Amino acid sequence: MNVEIVTIGDELLLGFTVDTNAAHLARELAAIGITVARRGTVGDDAAVIRDAIGDALDRAGAVITTGGLGPTSDDVTKPAVAELFGRAMVLDAEHLEWMRERWRRRFGREMPESNVRQALLPHGARKLENRHGSAPGIWLEDDRGRWVAMLPGVPREMRGMLADTLLPILRDRVGESHPVRSRTLRTTGVAESLLAEWIEQRTIDLQGATLAYLPSVAGVDLRLTLRDRPAAVADRVLSEVGDALRAAASQHVYGEGSADLAAEVLERCRARGLTLAVAESCTGGLAGARLTAVPGSSDVVLGGIIAYHNDVKSSLLGVTPETLGSEGAVSEATVRAMASGVRKRVGADIGLAITGIAGPGGGTEEKPVGTVWISVALADVVEVRLLRLWGDREEIRQRAVQAVLDLARRRLDAPFDGHRVA
Amino acid sequence: MNVEIVTIGDELLLGFTVDTNAAHLARELAAIGITVARRGTVGDDAAVIRDAIGDALDRAGAVITTGGLGPTSDDVTKPAVAELFGRAMVLDAEHLEWMRERWRRRFGREMPESNVRQALLPHGARKLENRHGSAPGIWLEDDRGRWVAMLPGVPREMRGMLADTLLPILRDRVGESHPVRSRTLRTTGVAESLLAEWIEQRTIDLQGATLAYLPSVAGVDLRLTLRDRPAAVADRVLSEVGDALRAAASQHVYGEGSADLAAEVLERCRARGLTLAVAESCTGGLAGARLTAVPGSSDVVLGGIIAYHNDVKSSLLGVTPETLGSEGAVSEATVRAMASGVRKRVGADIGLAITGIAGPGGGTEEKPVGTVWISVALADVVEVRLLRLWGDREEIRQRAVQAVLDLARRRLDAPFDGHRVA
Repeated sequence: MNVEIVTIGDELLLGFTVDTNAAHLARELAAIGITVARRGTVGDDAAVIRDAIGDALDRAGAVITTGGLGPTSDDVTKPAVAELFGRAMVLDAEHLEWMRERWRRRFGREMPESNVRQALLPHGARKLENRHGSAPGIWLEDDRGRWVAMLPGVPREMRGMLADTLLPILRDRVGESHPVRSRTLRTTGVAESLLAEWIEQRTIDLQGATLAYLPSVAGVDLRLTLRDRPAAVADRVLSEVGDALRAAASQHVYGEGSADLAAEVLERCRARGLTLAVAESCTGGLAGARLTAVPGSSDVVLGGIIAYHNDVKSSLLGVTPETLGSEGAVSEATVRAMASGVRKRVGADIGLAITGIAGPGGGTEEKPVGTVWISVALADVVEVRLLRLWGDREEIRQRAVQAVLDLARRRLDAPFDGHRVA
Repeated sequence: MNVEIVTIGDELLLGFTVDTNAAHLARELAAIGITVARRGTVGDDAAVIRDAIGDALDRAGAVITTGGLGPTSDDVTKPAVAELFGRAMVLDAEHLEWMRERWRRRFGREMPESNVRQALLPHGARKLENRHGSAPGIWLEDDRGRWVAMLPGVPREMRGMLADTLLPILRDRVGESHPVRSRTLRTTGVAESLLAEWIEQRTIDLQGATLAYLPSVAGVDLRLTLRDRPAAVADRVLSEVGDALRAAASQHVYGEGSADLAAEVLERCRARGLTLAVAESCTGGLAGARLTAVPGSSDVVLGGIIAYHNDVKSSLLGVTPETLGSEGAVSEATVRAMASGVRKRVGADIGLAITGIAGPGGGTEEKPVGTVWISVALADVVEVRLLRLWGDREEIRQRAVQAVLDLARRRLDAPFDGHRVA
């Protein structure tokens, strides 16, 4: 089954809002074997909405829209689609009563009459329940089986309604199918061009799969995608080809799918009963935030020290003023002292440390913006790395966090028995 | 001038990549008076690309595309547009030589012959220089003045080429115009429905502007937009109407445009020569990361303590085990002690503190997920607030950070002379 997506809203067209709904819809649909053939975005203009949905219906026979269902005057999706299907708008008395009741309960007063329009539906439409907001979704189908499903534009409401209501309907329609299948290897610490060279050298047979290189601040993801194959065949191909790619990228692969490097580090710590602390200068808490974003991180992460100012590096982490004076805050000696210092101060088994120049100011010829030292202290061993990072301030900070997490992952994968810290 | 945007790539259609390019393009174009009439997204399929760009050209006469210019076999935008314009693909010898030279320099070897296709251009095309990558952009125009501008899909390259090359060309074409003008008031700590009620009660004349409510974890933005008015008129309307809205939202407005609440807090500290430190439990460094994301924050932010585990709350922040035992880690007494503790420990004028239950686990009937205490300590005064936040773990953490920053902003706006900490 092919569908087209039309996302609606001046906000999207003006670029004030990034369209995350479209990507979410596409992923969820692919998972049940539905292909998004094309996507369009239009503003809150009834005639343009009608034309865009009409064109999409002509091409695909099935359209999902987001946006334009709310109570404000620029929400015009429903009447536009009603016109396209030649249906009148009729009042849904039951929904109107529910809305009135909701206003009394939530706001303690009568609903403004302007909201009545929210209870108008195209004749013959099926309501899609909205458990996360007040505007119901709409399903409209003509006698040739062509349909439009209208979802709200607020991402939380759209996602809820999709999962609760629309996906079950579509799953019934699609029946057994061959969904798009993919396998993603997540790598970090290696350039895209170098990865490509390693993979090229091995002349791996992709067996009909497509391979995409997806660079981001987290590293380069390698994604294999297969369409229109029976599940068993797809599984075998993705397994064989993916394993060959894994071998090519070797220790740079930190996980698969949506694996998070922070979660990988936590898991390795957890498996060995190790606790962790962070000492951060230029990242100012970003490594701590990244680690504690993982639910359940509290059994590994004890805490950390944000040592933005040099005085704090001395007073709380024990970096000596002499080191700071002679070597500077961005130096091997400082990062080493930070990692050891936070480990001792917080009483953790592992200390991670980052100090660098994230820019835009503060760079020198010797230490340009992007110069970052990272360190991992575990037992008596303190490992350090010098990074030369690129990008803007936020990218440099994020790359630095990813790099120190990767150093920790590798350290934890290496043998270190007998060095276990009490 | 109206343009349509067509973004190209299986990645986008499959939902693996969120289309940030389209939003960036729309904002930049609006700023020079160009309206994006419609937007489309298609996969790496030459026929579909040709049709989508053809339809857009028929409607608007001007199309900007992103994606499909790279060296890999699925990059097919150029030949598709060449076909649409009835042009042959011809080799650009100069660009080929530049590419060969680049490979020798960067990778120390000869360029693979498969890359030659990257030097093929539609006949009569104008190259748009790419200072941030290897694939040039393309400008193709027919004898009726209809044009397609093709930009790369990698956001950094697209943004660079847009700013360096395409915007200057378009600015020349547009000449004097009436760009879309907008004014955004950023509010936090107040519900959308309540804001709407206050604004409704004042019966503000919008004078033809449209008002959008834009909720996010940062709060609710109020955006006024005006189209097709001379600059002087637009400025007056936005000034008058915006000021009326500001009065309605009163102290909840923390800034305008793309104002960042963290930057607002830093500026207020800087103006009074105050330094700041953070103590974070459930946010694990997010408040520190947010503050230090602001360039130049180092003259205000000294550092902080991530006290994720209760032992760290005691050992580094001085929260007594008695308090933690009787009141719990998520309590008024604990957050108060954390704010005071970090202030003293780091030696800062102001201490911010956050402790709460971000979920998904850890909630109880008395303290459900979303229960967060925040505190701001300045001089002898320690202010605290209890928050009941909603959303997932990351939303709760972000809302908590925004709330403590807002508490700090209000505290710094209130009179506190004579309490200045040495």
